[in-house]
Amino acid sequence: MAGPSVSSSITVRLHVAARPTAVSELTTAIEQEGGIVTALDVTASGHEQMQVDVTCATLGEEHAARIVDALDGLDGVRVDRVSDRTFLMHLGGKLEITSKVPLRNRDDLSMAYTPGVARVSEAIAARPEDARRLTIKRNTIAVVTDGTAVLGLGDVGPLAALPVMEGKAVLFKRFADIDAFPIALDTTDVDQIVETVCAIAPVFAGINLEDISAPRCFEVERRLRERLDIPVFHDDQHGTAIVVVAALTNALQVVGKRIEDVRIVLSGAGAAGTAVLRLLLAAGAHDVVVADIDGVVHPDRPGLTEALRWTASVTNPRGVTGSIPQALVGADVFIGVSAPDVITGRDVSRMADDAIVFALANPRPEVDPDDAAQYAAVVGTGRSDFANQINNVLAFPGVFRGLLDAQSHRITDAMLLAAAGALAAVVRPDELNPTYIVPSVFNPEVTTRVAAAVAHAAREHG
Amino acid sequence: MAGPSVSSSITVRLHVAARPTAVSELTTAIEQEGGIVTALDVTASGHEQMQVDVTCATLGEEHAARIVDALDGLDGVRVDRVSDRTFLMHLGGKLEITSKVPLRNRDDLSMAYTPGVARVSEAIAARPEDARRLTIKRNTIAVVTDGTAVLGLGDVGPLAALPVMEGKAVLFKRFADIDAFPIALDTTDVDQIVETVCAIAPVFAGINLEDISAPRCFEVERRLRERLDIPVFHDDQHGTAIVVVAALTNALQVVGKRIEDVRIVLSGAGAAGTAVLRLLLAAGAHDVVVADIDGVVHPDRPGLTEALRWTASVTNPRGVTGSIPQALVGADVFIGVSAPDVITGRDVSRMADDAIVFALANPRPEVDPDDAAQYAAVVGTGRSDFANQINNVLAFPGVFRGLLDAQSHRITDAMLLAAAGALAAVVRPDELNPTYIVPSVFNPEVTTRVAAAVAHAAREHG
Repeated sequence: MAGPSVSSSITVRLHVAARPTAVSELTTAIEQEGGIVTALDVTASGHEQMQVDVTCATLGEEHAARIVDALDGLDGVRVDRVSDRTFLMHLGGKLEITSKVPLRNRDDLSMAYTPGVARVSEAIAARPEDARRLTIKRNTIAVVTDGTAVLGLGDVGPLAALPVMEGKAVLFKRFADIDAFPIALDTTDVDQIVETVCAIAPVFAGINLEDISAPRCFEVERRLRERLDIPVFHDDQHGTAIVVVAALTNALQVVGKRIEDVRIVLSGAGAAGTAVLRLLLAAGAHDVVVADIDGVVHPDRPGLTEALRWTASVTNPRGVTGSIPQALVGADVFIGVSAPDVITGRDVSRMADDAIVFALANPRPEVDPDDAAQYAAVVGTGRSDFANQINNVLAFPGVFRGLLDAQSHRITDAMLLAAAGALAAVVRPDELNPTYIVPSVFNPEVTTRVAAAVAHAAREHG
Repeated sequence: MAGPSVSSSITVRLHVAARPTAVSELTTAIEQEGGIVTALDVTASGHEQMQVDVTCATLGEEHAARIVDALDGLDGVRVDRVSDRTFLMHLGGKLEITSKVPLRNRDDLSMAYTPGVARVSEAIAARPEDARRLTIKRNTIAVVTDGTAVLGLGDVGPLAALPVMEGKAVLFKRFADIDAFPIALDTTDVDQIVETVCAIAPVFAGINLEDISAPRCFEVERRLRERLDIPVFHDDQHGTAIVVVAALTNALQVVGKRIEDVRIVLSGAGAAGTAVLRLLLAAGAHDVVVADIDGVVHPDRPGLTEALRWTASVTNPRGVTGSIPQALVGADVFIGVSAPDVITGRDVSRMADDAIVFALANPRPEVDPDDAAQYAAVVGTGRSDFANQINNVLAFPGVFRGLLDAQSHRITDAMLLAAAGALAAVVRPDELNPTYIVPSVFNPEVTTRVAAAVAHAAREHG
């Protein structure tokens, strides 16, 4: 379905016999193998030989190997070395801890460290709330994982999770100027996760939980919120929920329906699904049918867990049973935060007129978005290569910016709803159309408006 | 004893009647109160009035208040506002977490974060040792405290300890280009400290323990070293020991004595004292007498703790008893890592010829260094306003740089001794004299040579 991706691009250094067709032979060979040339530099040249660095996007490692083989097979061409642009970018890690103060001489030292720093410590000992003014606590959060649910990879452990947590910290800095530090825990025990985060909390003004598997993530979040006086936000849950509700708000505008009136089918009852459900209800939805791998959730389904019993009690007012395709007949909205290919274009064709489909499983959505678009009025995915990317980056930087700006001690559903409303409102009425229901992540208004809404709600209700 | 310090300097904004003597009246008033003017700027001027910002070093807060009062009492002068330069430097904290990779567009995003980062995670899941290449683990350490023994302030708690830990991280960056993150723990329980540090260890390549009170610090260090595969270094212990042994090496050169032959009296049996003792013995000292607040440690002293029983068993070969002044008679070396004013110049006068005195209690040493210098050949303190400052900053940056460069999994006495030897050798034979036994902390050779020696020892013995 997807084409070559820059995220799997390689740079190949080649020694090439100097003849008129040399360069075009290279690009033709790459294109014939299905690669996309994104850069080509002649980095050294002589009468007989040239050195050429060519960068191309590929479908992945096997595809890259085939492209390199094809280049190596060309007459007069020798492959020198192949580098993977993504790995180059990650070498040595993606974060640096830098000093904001100069240390040029003994005077600087005496102020930044002993003896001057003692007066700052004494001031905080006397007034602990001054830590928000005189230390990095003001603007620093922890990105905490136990490595059990990393991207689509699953339980890869804390070390393998670290590049993702660093990436998250990079996004916090880039989009909200927040100093975020990755905490990758060498434990998956709920008690120990809670104790550890509580123990390291003093330096942080907020905790962003990340990629912790359900149902453990619910208990970790609940207990941390009880014990800490700083906001705790599980992005896989609430970040997703905010962006889904914002996108749905605008999609409903496009088709002229109201959230109070529509029938919604939600595929997925894990971390994201549960949070999306809560926020949909808070936003006014009345008719939500939730389904998981065992089909539609209803009170009489055998073997319901405690979480699913709660889900059954607050959803499914029409008593729907059966499979997702059955539940979809006549539905206005499908939201998938589950797994690839749980429905087909045909299932979408049986939804109500002007249907809305958000298929967010990544990288392979719940339904092929091109198939869905044949029948639905608005289609969104989690991918960047389709219209309407429903991406958490639209939410978490602004949410934490707002929490830090308001020095909030907690986070509430009112703040999440405020964030969703502000995000939806970034798309102006004259911009709104079926392929533009959420703004670009690079739109600078996204963070500032979400942050302002969250800070306002925090000051009002916090 | 000490004069006004830049670490207690203030900047006062004044509105002053414009007359020829206006500026000199200000500086005279400050000097009459004992302040030292370090900067004076006319920041706005009119026919009748000037705005003047004057910065001066003071003895501390009370003195600063007296100076401000004196200025306010001058005819035609009005104090607008007073700012404390040290507090200004600490506003918002002293560290920032920055991104080393650009995020200009979707392509960058797809490499630094999903989907590209998944390939990096998979590579580390397959080969965990690649985390040292592909994540910040390569160059990142934790500065860990529980806030129980912060500078001379004692148990001020984690929040008040944070400015000191940030300062330490600034020093790591400035002197060794190491990314250090402060972990200020909301617990003083040894078990919980150990569990927490083990849980957060994956992201770090080393642990620097800091300002944890004795004897808890010994057990924390021992248990962390047993459980972790990264080096654990308690700077209050080993940093001090390295610099003391380096300074002693050079001081003995100056007076022409050998460490094997000298009688050493060590005042202090806490964290620093114990580590200094261990490293002195490892460096070849045979005759060390240790004393604490209850006098000289010997096997028959009643009520010895386990740690002091060990001390008694490895020291005091001549069976000395009594007080520190008694033990000092005929001794070659006094090393104090204890408390102010435990000996006098008279006690120093009873030491052997060419005595060496290191009085490291800070800010008030074990003996007035000017008094000691009347009788001793070499005097060192922990203060920056006397010659021979014995400062941990000379050791810890290079030690960790070496450990990280060698990707060492532990730290041994051999590495500490190598660090001390390299630090001593930074002072060239032609530079060596009684007032120059340790190099300046701003000498760039300090870190590189200590690091090289530690890395070499790590590769040899690690």
